[in-house]
Amino acid sequence: MAKPKVACLLAGDFEDSELKVPYDRLTGAGIQVDIIGGRAGEQLEGKRHEETALTDKSIDGVRPEDYDALLIPGGYSPDKLRADERFVEFVRRFDRLGKPIAAVCHGPQLLLTAGLVKGRAMTGWKTVQADLKAAGADVRDEPLVLDRNWITSRKPEDLGVFTEALLKSLR
Amino acid sequence: MAKPKVACLLAGDFEDSELKVPYDRLTGAGIQVDIIGGRAGEQLEGKRHEETALTDKSIDGVRPEDYDALLIPGGYSPDKLRADERFVEFVRRFDRLGKPIAAVCHGPQLLLTAGLVKGRAMTGWKTVQADLKAAGADVRDEPLVLDRNWITSRKPEDLGVFTEALLKSLR
Repeated sequence: MAKPKVACLLAGDFEDSELKVPYDRLTGAGIQVDIIGGRAGEQLEGKRHEETALTDKSIDGVRPEDYDALLIPGGYSPDKLRADERFVEFVRRFDRLGKPIAAVCHGPQLLLTAGLVKGRAMTGWKTVQADLKAAGADVRDEPLVLDRNWITSRKPEDLGVFTEALLKSLR
Repeated sequence: MAKPKVACLLAGDFEDSELKVPYDRLTGAGIQVDIIGGRAGEQLEGKRHEETALTDKSIDGVRPEDYDALLIPGGYSPDKLRADERFVEFVRRFDRLGKPIAAVCHGPQLLLTAGLVKGRAMTGWKTVQADLKAAGADVRDEPLVLDRNWITSRKPEDLGVFTEALLKSLR
């Protein structure tokens, strides 16, 4: 069986641990994680200045069909990504394929902008929960919410169960 | 007539110009602007590291009744403020009094979390527009939207008309 591949959508000012914890755990399990940004080879810095990441690919050079799951770390990164229709459309197409989407903290903002949250059970950062509720999502203030292909969590403290759920979805 | 007083709700990583431009214009016109944060005497820095602001008062020490208008600059500040129920409740009470509320860029996030946006004509930063729409607001992609006591704008480029509208509301 081919090695699973995960697409990670990232912009600057991401929540440092929300990249590092899943990234280290996934790559440690032999899974390829491509960091996908506005352009390839760009150095991105976390909002706490603890982590940096080099984008492997530009969003223009990837297709949802090439990946087995999608990872969306939080921080201010998702609000930057959703200002760019290329990322919103990538998420929309990924969901249409029914492949696992794991979004933590502010990550679900991308799902909201993609118009996908109505009626979905999910969670997110406490301030984002209000937006999701107002958009018609079935919001739960829990560490991990699973709904069909969606894996959502609230914050860095939830990263253990979040990452395990993402790993499990790839088995 | 007493000098008008404006309450400005602020946290760190605000959009620098969205504090500076209205603040300078209002204080230059003889209007008192109180910068209100989580606690008094706190130094806050803009997200572009161009501006700093010292909070005049803590949210615990102010009442909507003490002010003639409310100013909510954007950047990442509003998402931090709305994580704290004291700010959300202040906005809710301010709106109940029907006094002018001027929110720019991410500022309308506070109005959304306060549960006030349904059916209101308004605008905001492009990514926030999606949240507002999903929450039932009548969103317009225009530099300035006026609806009863609300004054909303999208971004730094709109600050001229935004600030003039706020000034006019105080006359």
